[in-house]
Amino acid sequence: MTLQTEATQPAGLESLLSRRARHVGSDPLLQGMDRVGQRISFIFGFPDPASLPADEVASTTADVLRERGRAALQYGDNAGYSGLIDALIAKLARDQGIEAKRDNILITAGGSQALDLLLDALVDWGDTIVSEMPTWLGAVQAFRNVGANIVSIPVDHQGIDVAVLARELGRLRDMGVTPKFIYANANFQNPTGATMSRRRRQELLALARSANTLLIEDDAYFDLRYEGEPLPTIYSLDHDGTVVYMGTLSKTMGPGMRLGWIVGPPELVRRVSALKVDGGTNVFGAHVAADWLPERLLPHVQRLREVYRRRRDLMIAALEQHMPPGSTWTVPDGGFFIWVTLPEEIDTKRMHPQVQELGVEYLPGPACFAEGTGANQLRLSYSFVEDDLIEPGIRVIGEVAAAELREARGAV
Amino acid sequence: MTLQTEATQPAGLESLLSRRARHVGSDPLLQGMDRVGQRISFIFGFPDPASLPADEVASTTADVLRERGRAALQYGDNAGYSGLIDALIAKLARDQGIEAKRDNILITAGGSQALDLLLDALVDWGDTIVSEMPTWLGAVQAFRNVGANIVSIPVDHQGIDVAVLARELGRLRDMGVTPKFIYANANFQNPTGATMSRRRRQELLALARSANTLLIEDDAYFDLRYEGEPLPTIYSLDHDGTVVYMGTLSKTMGPGMRLGWIVGPPELVRRVSALKVDGGTNVFGAHVAADWLPERLLPHVQRLREVYRRRRDLMIAALEQHMPPGSTWTVPDGGFFIWVTLPEEIDTKRMHPQVQELGVEYLPGPACFAEGTGANQLRLSYSFVEDDLIEPGIRVIGEVAAAELREARGAV
Repeated sequence: MTLQTEATQPAGLESLLSRRARHVGSDPLLQGMDRVGQRISFIFGFPDPASLPADEVASTTADVLRERGRAALQYGDNAGYSGLIDALIAKLARDQGIEAKRDNILITAGGSQALDLLLDALVDWGDTIVSEMPTWLGAVQAFRNVGANIVSIPVDHQGIDVAVLARELGRLRDMGVTPKFIYANANFQNPTGATMSRRRRQELLALARSANTLLIEDDAYFDLRYEGEPLPTIYSLDHDGTVVYMGTLSKTMGPGMRLGWIVGPPELVRRVSALKVDGGTNVFGAHVAADWLPERLLPHVQRLREVYRRRRDLMIAALEQHMPPGSTWTVPDGGFFIWVTLPEEIDTKRMHPQVQELGVEYLPGPACFAEGTGANQLRLSYSFVEDDLIEPGIRVIGEVAAAELREARGAV
Repeated sequence: MTLQTEATQPAGLESLLSRRARHVGSDPLLQGMDRVGQRISFIFGFPDPASLPADEVASTTADVLRERGRAALQYGDNAGYSGLIDALIAKLARDQGIEAKRDNILITAGGSQALDLLLDALVDWGDTIVSEMPTWLGAVQAFRNVGANIVSIPVDHQGIDVAVLARELGRLRDMGVTPKFIYANANFQNPTGATMSRRRRQELLALARSANTLLIEDDAYFDLRYEGEPLPTIYSLDHDGTVVYMGTLSKTMGPGMRLGWIVGPPELVRRVSALKVDGGTNVFGAHVAADWLPERLLPHVQRLREVYRRRRDLMIAALEQHMPPGSTWTVPDGGFFIWVTLPEEIDTKRMHPQVQELGVEYLPGPACFAEGTGANQLRLSYSFVEDDLIEPGIRVIGEVAAAELREARGAV
């Protein structure tokens, strides 16, 4: 990358960059969004475009600007708009079993900025953190950007492997290393779709506590459960400030609002808030969301659950029909993702260009691993593709995979 | 602070915090915004509430959501919404004499996040940076948060003191230190109101270039010149990628939009964009701004110039009437700020509580200095206070200052 870029950069820029900037991947995670949708895209965790509540947001915005335009267009608190914080407190108590006060909550620019701020507040270059692996590709990139030493813990159908976690925490303890935090998704894990059992949640919390570290519970998909009984958030099981809970409106009201939140110990929230010199988080959007949330969220989420359950079922059916023998995949109770494991001969990164040429795209498994492993795996998002394009898209992936397999097995 | 907070934090949190978080000031910069306006507040650089274009934003939002709600509520490019980038390219060419291409521009959550991102991309803990002093209090806090070693350069009525800057850069060179950047406001400097002469702009650019460092030109108030002829932006004088230009909509369309931008070398913009894992900057607001900007900005700015020129004149008249003998103040050609220097016996931090008790507030000078100097100085913003409250507010400050002076001089 350096060679390729030196041409375009002013003399000496490289030497002025921070470790973070020198270290960062060569490409922004999201680019070319104007063109997204030209392919059958199973690549990103984008919500269904047709379900985005544009009309509701338009009418709510008109009301908000009429009633309190002077506040909605002015600077805001570092901690976020108090009206949105209050709406969240009610939502978290009602849905998540989380009893929070204002000083427990920080409004952020989506879950992405929430994690980014927590990394700024907790991680110095070279510090050790523990994370489920595979995990959200944005987290993998954010961990790298701050120079974290990442200890990876595998995920099975019941969520994070607590046996491996216990072993790794013990190893770190023996080395005299206290990890800054453990990062995990309890619901519909990104990318595996796995939901952590109640027992695992309790064991994970106990392990975090005994390691004297924090547990970052990223629950971006909480509202989108469409099967099985809801399980308690790990935050609601915690009574001593071990858990920092992350949520977002990106999967419900819409990612364009760029609104998420951290729920955690007041002291941590205050420190992060003080680090966040940004004139307030997305004040305009926060005022709109504060008025949309109380009445509109639940009915909207009900509609979304129907859409995504249907798409999950369509994708599962298509996978059964088109994936080559020896392939396996997960069946999530909610969220956006199915995790596919293909026969070992297949390299999902190598075959992706062929699939893209045929107008389809997916996320190759290695993007979800800090170590770049997962060569024969891939993540499929069923959230963004219209019903009648799911089967054709999966068929393309299945056919290319089958061809790869024949070639690899010399049966061409 | 530590003593006071240890009670509320979970055991061991302190040891899990990063240097940034342990180092950060005890209080968020902006809090209690719900109550702002209960006093006659000359404290912050907030725009006039009555001038915020709430109706225009409401109607533009309705159009945007009807025409492209699916994009406005979806994730966006790390670099920002391309439609806003294109609108900015036209505005920068028309108003600022800046010829930029898409890959020169990064959309940010206001100027605050722009500086924050530049610090992440350029500064490692303990790195040296050079800044005008006094300067924007948000910059002072942001510099501290990343552990920068700040070299302060004084500002006179023509802007940054280039003689001192040359001497300091020479000193650093002798020490083998290359500062990561020089930070300056060329127009209506925050807090002094000083505008850099054309000659100074050229000298500053030449000094930055010869020091092989970057010049961050923060031009938040560019559009709000209401006296004197416009001077070329330093960016427009630069031909080798030395200048990184920062701008914002916070002083025109409204801070609640949380939209600003960086214009700089493509390689730097790309690196910063890759560091910025945030799902796109304020996508919803960016779509609205993209449609508001082309037709609405200029007429809106014309109205604002009238409002702020009038308030500046009212404040200057009130200062002449009420400030104790021996006080001096600046007279800005634009922007929001007047910088007052009181007789040396007066401590503006010490007298502030009395002024607040009388329902008025200002920014004590030390907040604008990394070293906490400026004890007998204060910053007044005339932007946020209605015309007929300016004279009463200044009278209070003048009376308290006069009393302080009498006391200090033993004439009680």
